[in-house]
Amino acid sequence: MNLEEYIEVIPDFPKKGVQFKDVTSLMQNGEAYKEAINQMSKLAKDMGAEVIVGPESRGFLFGCPVAFNLNLPFIPVRKPGKLPRETINYTYDLEYGTDTLCMHKDSIKKGQKVVIVDDIVALGGTMEAVINMVNLLGGEVVGLVCLIGLTSLPGVKKLEPFGLKCLIYDNVEDK
Amino acid sequence: MNLEEYIEVIPDFPKKGVQFKDVTSLMQNGEAYKEAINQMSKLAKDMGAEVIVGPESRGFLFGCPVAFNLNLPFIPVRKPGKLPRETINYTYDLEYGTDTLCMHKDSIKKGQKVVIVDDIVALGGTMEAVINMVNLLGGEVVGLVCLIGLTSLPGVKKLEPFGLKCLIYDNVEDK
Repeated sequence: MNLEEYIEVIPDFPKKGVQFKDVTSLMQNGEAYKEAINQMSKLAKDMGAEVIVGPESRGFLFGCPVAFNLNLPFIPVRKPGKLPRETINYTYDLEYGTDTLCMHKDSIKKGQKVVIVDDIVALGGTMEAVINMVNLLGGEVVGLVCLIGLTSLPGVKKLEPFGLKCLIYDNVEDK
Repeated sequence: MNLEEYIEVIPDFPKKGVQFKDVTSLMQNGEAYKEAINQMSKLAKDMGAEVIVGPESRGFLFGCPVAFNLNLPFIPVRKPGKLPRETINYTYDLEYGTDTLCMHKDSIKKGQKVVIVDDIVALGGTMEAVINMVNLLGGEVVGLVCLIGLTSLPGVKKLEPFGLKCLIYDNVEDK
């Protein structure tokens, strides 16, 4: 099964010039979604994952079934004001402005082997923030698993030293 | 396994007087998360689900692994501006103000049997909105599956005619 065939490319979304890769078109096909999750699970298992971490919201779409499939905990990374227990908050720079992400302080045990799962790597900023948060909590990031890596943007190269693996490497240029 | 033991209750979150049921504490335990998803999957399967629908973001935490487990598509219901293809948008009343949810127009096939999955039923407003959206798209809602139903609030009673089943029925009063 060629998973790439199930990813629709939407021109000029969310802004002109961007060729948006729509992961929901893949999820609309039960067999393709199953195959993607099974392949992502195998990568996470081979990395030695003891816990799966995923950022809100699209990281949940892939990270949750991977965690379930491997019988592992899933730890959500969320926007401020969403997690009810004590959190660490991490602010990082975007192209314009900043963003803040939160994790529960007790969500990762010291030395626990963490695999971070997300849908798409573009610039890699969110993934870098989550790596830093896991490290602050005392976890060990043993790898990163994404459905799609956009090789025309700097994220894939930047994250390879952290063990990034993607099912699809897409070099369609964002104009 | 008593799943209720894994749900931490956080007093006064997100506002004073609310006893917040934290589903992330259950997900922090791989065995408890697995058991919850397996039980929710069995309910959805018995309802005859052909597709799983879940609202952003906490519906993804449970709906995605249920869809994967049953080899079914997962259709996300999202906030405006997030879905790249043509959508239907549905605005509904909240306690103060309104909220709008979106689904891709081609996400449900005519007559397809839909089970909607979410984490918690409180007032039932989001679930009601999603039922209406699925109907507008020509789908048939054959049931609703939630981890927790708060029986002290009106959502559970209101949604039972639509086939609501919850793993945990919680009658702790929100003060």
